[in-house]
Amino acid sequence: MSDLGSDLKKAASILKVADNIVILTHKSPDGDTLGSSFALCRALLKLGKKARVECSDAFPKKYGYLYDGIEFPDFEPQLIVASDIATENLLGEKLLKYKGKVGLCIDHHPSNEKYAAFTVLNPTAAANCETFPELISLLEVNIDSNIANCIYTGLATDSGCFRFSNTTAKTLQIAAHMIELGADNARINKLLFETMSKARIEMERLVFGTLEYHFDGRAALIAITHEMYEKTGLGESETEGLPSIPARIEGVLAGITVKEKGDGFYKISLRTSGGLNASRICSKFGGGGHSCAAGCELSGSLESVKAAILSAVEEALKK
Amino acid sequence: MSDLGSDLKKAASILKVADNIVILTHKSPDGDTLGSSFALCRALLKLGKKARVECSDAFPKKYGYLYDGIEFPDFEPQLIVASDIATENLLGEKLLKYKGKVGLCIDHHPSNEKYAAFTVLNPTAAANCETFPELISLLEVNIDSNIANCIYTGLATDSGCFRFSNTTAKTLQIAAHMIELGADNARINKLLFETMSKARIEMERLVFGTLEYHFDGRAALIAITHEMYEKTGLGESETEGLPSIPARIEGVLAGITVKEKGDGFYKISLRTSGGLNASRICSKFGGGGHSCAAGCELSGSLESVKAAILSAVEEALKK
Repeated sequence: MSDLGSDLKKAASILKVADNIVILTHKSPDGDTLGSSFALCRALLKLGKKARVECSDAFPKKYGYLYDGIEFPDFEPQLIVASDIATENLLGEKLLKYKGKVGLCIDHHPSNEKYAAFTVLNPTAAANCETFPELISLLEVNIDSNIANCIYTGLATDSGCFRFSNTTAKTLQIAAHMIELGADNARINKLLFETMSKARIEMERLVFGTLEYHFDGRAALIAITHEMYEKTGLGESETEGLPSIPARIEGVLAGITVKEKGDGFYKISLRTSGGLNASRICSKFGGGGHSCAAGCELSGSLESVKAAILSAVEEALKK
Repeated sequence: MSDLGSDLKKAASILKVADNIVILTHKSPDGDTLGSSFALCRALLKLGKKARVECSDAFPKKYGYLYDGIEFPDFEPQLIVASDIATENLLGEKLLKYKGKVGLCIDHHPSNEKYAAFTVLNPTAAANCETFPELISLLEVNIDSNIANCIYTGLATDSGCFRFSNTTAKTLQIAAHMIELGADNARINKLLFETMSKARIEMERLVFGTLEYHFDGRAALIAITHEMYEKTGLGESETEGLPSIPARIEGVLAGITVKEKGDGFYKISLRTSGGLNASRICSKFGGGGHSCAAGCELSGSLESVKAAILSAVEEALKK
């Protein structure tokens, strides 16, 4: 049996002996932390246990189908489970009270800090949800269509609907299995990947208007400013996907997104290809990340911040 | 055995007894007609047969990996195979010479006109490529990574990278199997779904600039004009995906795209939801289609054409 297999057996036995279980998602919750948490919550409820999901932020409305029909009873927890949370810093303010108290963590981030009493880590999984069909079957619960919808949601959101390079044969096999068990992939995909709010489309329109090319088209830059948030009514957390736009353009080696943070601060997201090291460029400004995707913060005016990051990119392009 | 199973057995025996085989794709070829044709072509070549793929149009460059390393020998065909071609009208001008001569057609369009001597139809398949793993295994050919790339390409392109409602558990299972056999899903997805040309992104920027809302946001309209084609250098065939934008906006029941055709003519694409009948609206102008997606042509100025279709939409919204 693989390590994962025996770890899952241990996780299942930890869950089986506890009765009142709180499951935590990370702050700024996405489809995978929510999908995996509610899949487990629904399985525990089917076993007759008390269980609820907690999050430092409100559950986004579009994910309402994940917790439709579930109640959130008040009880004193015997066991705290963290789902898709790599570090306790991601608990967020409201859940800080659970720091040091997590009994079981189920995660897929290689950077997981092993802060829980016991951790099940599946670092090759595209989504944390990949781990849950096996865990739920070890709990001897049948996956119904509600649980299948939860698991499908995590798989689809963390893999860009199976488009990102983290998608493996296993990701697709599990998604197929969830559809066989009743996951409504057509409805979920339409909701999560088709429908755009008016505010979001207005933001895209404004952001496209800021697109500029530099260094013979090898760098492309977009800006997202406070004025745009005000104009569109969109929050900063609702700009997901936008920073990937400049890097997707043919011939672009450095895709730069400059986001206004307030008080003269700007957050830079840099995505690179063709051997350009994003982390090295951002480290010049005290930032860092991966070789293909990194970030840093700069202060000044929008124009001076743009000039600074462009100059660092130009220097790297010359090498 | 299912009908499809026995039909595939017959198709395999037809292919086995022929030596010189020409495989036809439909005109304006997409990833599914190309992927299925080259998958079969590669399998036949592995059997030591002579085979080539023909198309009325040039093979798009981005699909070059499908036919990398394949030669296109000249020979007199013993068997003509049509792949993903619902009607002989889709052969295109260059392949019209094969009209009435197709011995075997393998297709997934429910509207297939059964013009071939023998037809294998898999109407519940998201992509024609879904049929080919079984067919190739009946030919007793191992699916290598090149064939797996061909089949994966058809699955991914016809299903919007597994996002569209035609995606079934089977589609995902076959995609998983192709990845296990060596399909490079990460590279193919990046090439087909991530990368955007500068011209395309410039077109999106211009199109977003034309977006207008009507009737309390229940209708949204975009325009694509000749001036935009000239500015971006993009051809009309390269605007795929754009007409779906207005209908994807939250609260929009009628998404309208007005495309300039030249000589004062405009093509209208209408996508509707919430019970609004697109075909009925377009039929007022001599057009038609499905209840959720229809089209028509109008002549006049851009402003008068917009006014005409908006007035018909308004009337339908009142009902």
